This record gives sequence, structure tokens and C-alpha cells, in this order.
Amino acid sequence: MDHKRRLRDLSVSLAEHRIGYLLITHLPNVRYLCGFTGSAGVLLLGGTEPVFFTDGRYTAQAQAEVQGARVVIEAKSPLVAVAAWLKQSRRSGVLGIEGEHLTVAAEARLRATLPKRLRLRAVSGMVERQRMVKDAAEIERLRRAVKLGSSLFLPAVRTIRPGVPESVVAAKIEYAARRAGAEAMAFTTIVAGGVRSALPHGHASPAPLPSQGFVVLDFGVILRGYCSDMTRTVVVGRVTSRQREWYAAVLEAQLAGIASVRTGATADDVDNVTRKVLKKNKLAKYFTHSTGHGVGLEIHEAPRLAAGQEEVLKPGMVITIEPGIYVPGQGGIRIEDMVVVTETGCEILTTGTKELIAI
Amino acid sequence: MDHKRRLRDLSVSLAEHRIGYLLITHLPNVRYLCGFTGSAGVLLLGGTEPVFFTDGRYTAQAQAEVQGARVVIEAKSPLVAVAAWLKQSRRSGVLGIEGEHLTVAAEARLRATLPKRLRLRAVSGMVERQRMVKDAAEIERLRRAVKLGSSLFLPAVRTIRPGVPESVVAAKIEYAARRAGAEAMAFTTIVAGGVRSALPHGHASPAPLPSQGFVVLDFGVILRGYCSDMTRTVVVGRVTSRQREWYAAVLEAQLAGIASVRTGATADDVDNVTRKVLKKNKLAKYFTHSTGHGVGLEIHEAPRLAAGQEEVLKPGMVITIEPGIYVPGQGGIRIEDMVVVTETGCEILTTGTKELIAI
Repeated sequence: MDHKRRLRDLSVSLAEHRIGYLLITHLPNVRYLCGFTGSAGVLLLGGTEPVFFTDGRYTAQAQAEVQGARVVIEAKSPLVAVAAWLKQSRRSGVLGIEGEHLTVAAEARLRATLPKRLRLRAVSGMVERQRMVKDAAEIERLRRAVKLGSSLFLPAVRTIRPGVPESVVAAKIEYAARRAGAEAMAFTTIVAGGVRSALPHGHASPAPLPSQGFVVLDFGVILRGYCSDMTRTVVVGRVTSRQREWYAAVLEAQLAGIASVRTGATADDVDNVTRKVLKKNKLAKYFTHSTGHGVGLEIHEAPRLAAGQEEVLKPGMVITIEPGIYVPGQGGIRIEDMVVVTETGCEILTTGTKELIAI
Repeated sequence: MDHKRRLRDLSVSLAEHRIGYLLITHLPNVRYLCGFTGSAGVLLLGGTEPVFFTDGRYTAQAQAEVQGARVVIEAKSPLVAVAAWLKQSRRSGVLGIEGEHLTVAAEARLRATLPKRLRLRAVSGMVERQRMVKDAAEIERLRRAVKLGSSLFLPAVRTIRPGVPESVVAAKIEYAARRAGAEAMAFTTIVAGGVRSALPHGHASPAPLPSQGFVVLDFGVILRGYCSDMTRTVVVGRVTSRQREWYAAVLEAQLAGIASVRTGATADDVDNVTRKVLKKNKLAKYFTHSTGHGVGLEIHEAPRLAAGQEEVLKPGMVITIEPGIYVPGQGGIRIEDMVVVTETGCEILTTGTKELIAI
């Protein structure tokens, strides 16, 4: 990972925003910029060189991982440590803080310590904007994470039958993920059968799978820090003609969404495309979430593929395309792939059939 | 769960703090107060009745779960919804916000919408203080979670042998947890062998377990919302006399810590007791974290059992006692139980031997 280039790019961004210093407290941003993977650390940018603060638990790890920044180890919490360090330094001017991540209480503690010559200013999305476009090393890691994630689908399908608890299907997915080398799941595994498939976020419960109905499987892994995200929907029991129509409509929307992804399209454009297909099939009112989101070090990143989002797609963005419908009391369907935006379209990273599987 | 009593107790607390309204945004606090388990919701206290805001994804769930509060469903995000609702209402005075949880950016958005007659004031720990002392229904849930968690230890030990990747041991623990009904793990499972056992937070990695050395296992489950937390340390290969001494010292510290827990003791007292035992054994410098923490809806809650923490233990608090030593380049040991504070001492919830197991 080219941390030095990332730090350099961000320092240009600091100058453009007329911010002398920037305090990075959001851990995925810290990791992105300097490589530290632990649970306590802050990175101070600006001045002659970046400085990374952590505590004694991470002495060895920080020395092994951190690139492009000087490492300072302090007994106190990293935020208290950086505040004390800044107080003793002669630095002055604007100190940017990550307003979307820092709590009101943490900001108040910073203010109480820092001298008046440093003026706090909340900034938003400076690192997140940089993270939207993945570099080659990141795309390679995402490719491997998605490959691992995709490999879990068919074995999971083989565990599905009426009466099996949703949680057992989730257990098998998660066990296989670990055995294949995943560090962790990227989010709480969703296995939602029958009427529960109409819950967009139906975490696997002890409920038994029904003898007839949809089963939504939505799962992802973390591999070397990067997330995968995939959804498939299968049917247990006899497939009704309505189920077949609904499934075909969602799949049509998903394929149309993927076909609309290209450099220069906006996030809103892609959302609009999937929504139009569902509208044509009189199902748009059951599509109650956005079309997709960026994925990287975090499972939900910028851009958001939703109505009104004017973000222009660029080569190297990695996003999900995941339209779904949720009919209360009946059931739901969602189909999700991860894709990399290219100059002329996109490359689908997720593998695994999207034909309707009946069990 | 007696949500109405909890809301009533908090409203007394509001009056004591001279706060007219309190906006609960931290989801475990929302769940504690009104029962909602979803991922988007805020609770407004004060006035004639509590009001809970969520979005359309949670219509059915909110109606089924929320107790003691009126439910308002809005298309926008709950924080935007509550701000708009307050703007339209005639309410005035002090509106408390959870400063330890609300971000600087969210506070700024609230300020931008709210009329001047509502003055924001960051408050800290109001709900967390209430949550420290568990009621009977919570203790029952914690008891079941800990029972499930404890049942995972011996099967996990049976998977340990030289060369097995740490991640495979974690996979088996997590699979067994799911099969036994756990909703999820309470935190990233720690399996750290050999020199990696000297990392206090050595998440299970692909590294193979060594032929000789300590293996630290630290894991917990979530069952019906409540967390368990347990650590044991075993030895692979021949046990050296030094390993035996170190283990005996940590176990002595842990047992002394448990023996010191009683109503009226402070968190600092208990921390002091474990530290003294390790000091006597010349190992205190390797004990680099605090003695324990509260556990409930979150894996880390108040009180913190650390130096300088003057919190007085009360009946119904549920805490961990988990001294450990971490000798860089050599290995580490941690032993952790969960206990409920009683009038005269404590009840140990965790089961599972603490004798040194050699594999």
C-alpha cells in the first residue's frame, strides 16, 4: 500500500482547504493513511511530518505497521496525548477535526486542552473522498475478499431446507469464511426466510426456514482489512408464478443497474435505472432503500447510490448494486454484486449464479 | 424488561439535572429505555410522553418492540426527523444530547434546524449510570449468555494442537456459539498463541499454534442482546516452571480480585488488589491494562475497574475480573470471569476450570 502517496495527496487537499493541521481520529482513515490496524491511534497531519500517536499496548505493532509518519507512544489515550503534544508545540492556525466521527465530548476535551493559537474546524469527508477511488493494491485486496465471499454462497445454499434455523445457515457461512482465511465477517450475516425475507435487515434468527418462500442471504467477509458484500435470494418449496415474476423484475433491475455503471454517470443515474425497472413492474414502492454503496476498508463507504446523489463515478470506485423489494407479510428479494468502475463500464467482482435457485 | 420503570427513573434524573428534554441517540441506550433493537432510531424524553423516531424500514419492528413511547415513522433519518418535529412543536428550554456519542457534525446539523428557544447541552453518562446496575431480568439474560459462552471453552480446548491456525480455533468457537443460539459474537474472538499471546488483543490470525507456549482464548457471545466475556489461557507442550509460576500468579491475582468484590468497595479497590498480587510476584509491570469492566447490552460498559476509578460497587452490577500479564517476546496469560456484585461479595457467573491445562 502506497501510504506515502496517500499522505502526500491529503496534504495537497489540506492546502486547498487552507487548513494547517488535520487530526485523523477515524480508525479506517488512520489505517488508510499510515497502515496502523490497531484499535487506538490518532494521526496528526500538517507541519514538517505526520505524527502518529498510540499507547503502550501497540508499541511493537505501530513500529511494524506505520508508514510515512513518526510514531509517538504515550501512556495516556492517543487523543489526550496529541492534545498535550500540540499544547507544548509552537503550532498555530487551523486544526481540522473529523466532524462526522469525533464526538461532541471528545471535541470539548480537545478544546479544553489546546491553546487559543490553534483554532478547531470540523471538516467532512476529506479522507473519505480520497478513499472512494481505490488504487491497484486496494482493488487487488477487494478482488480477493470478494472471491472468498463469493465462494461461500453455493455451500450455504446446500444447507438450506425447511425447518433448518436461519442461524444454522449463518453459522455454516461464517465457519466456512473463517476456514477460508477471513479475518471476520464484514457485518452481521443476514439469513431471512419466508415473511422474514421482507425485512431488509433480517439478521439470521433462530427461526426455522419455512417450507415455502424466499430466503435472502446477505453476507460479507473481511480479508486483509478489505470487505466483501454479496446478496442472493433463493426459494424454498414450489415456486409460484408471482415469485418468479418478482424475482425476474429484481434481477432485471440489478442487471440494468450494472449496465448503467460507467465513468461519468452519477450515483443518482444508477439508482434511477434500477428504480425505473421496478417501477415498470409496479414494484417500486417495495424498493425501500438505495441502490448501493461504496465498499473498501469499511462495509459502507462513499459514494451512496441513491436519489439526489450527484457524485460522478470514476475508474477505481468499488460499489455494490443491490436493488431489492420487500412486500410486508409476503417476502422479499435482493440481489447484490460488487463491481469496479472502469472507463467504459464496470467489471463485476462477485461470482455466483443469479438464476433463481429453487430448493 | 421493565422499560416504563427505566423511563420513569430517567425522567427523575432529568429533573435533577434541570434538563427539560433529552435526546437519546446511542442505540444501546435506546434499546435499554424503550426496547427497540433496530439500527436507526432516536428517543426523545421529557414533555408529556417519550417519543421514538425511526424510518419506514422499521415500522413493524418498532410497533412490536417499543414500549413506553409513542412511535413516529418518518422517511428521513431519525435525527433529521426529530429536529423537524421539535422545530414544529412549541417546546423550549434545555435539550440534552449525549455528548459521548453524538458526533460534532450531527450536533451541528441539529443546531442548524432547532429554533433558538431550545438550547442544546451535552450531558454524559446519564443512561449509562442507570445501566450499570442490572435489574433481575437483565441478570437472568446475562446469566444465560455467560452459560452459553462458558460452554464453548472445553470444546475449543479440544481443537488446540501445534500447527492448527488460530483462526481455525476461533472458527470452531464461533460455529459452536451460533449452533447454540448466539445471535453473534460480542467482540472479535481472540486466539493468540506463543509470542502472540503477549498481545493483549491478539485477534485470531492465520498463524499456526506453536509447539510450546501459552494460548490465550478470549471470546464472548450475544444472546438476546446481552453479552458474555470470558478468557482462559492454556499451555501447549511441556510446561516450564516459569510458565507455571506466571500462571499461578495471574490466577492468584484473579481470585484475590474476585474475593475483593463487594458492595461498598470501589472499582479502584478491586484493581488495586489484583495489581498488588502481581507486584508481590514482580510481574506488575507486565499487567498493562485495567482489571475489568461492566458488561451488559455492550461488551464494555461502566464501571471501569481501573486505578483512580472511585465508582462504588453496588448489588446488581455485572463486571469482569481479568488481570493478565504480557511479556514481550515471551508470552502472555489472562484469566477472566464475569461476576454479579451482591451485598456481601459476588456471584461468579462464568463456569469452566481455571486450573492450568497443558495440551
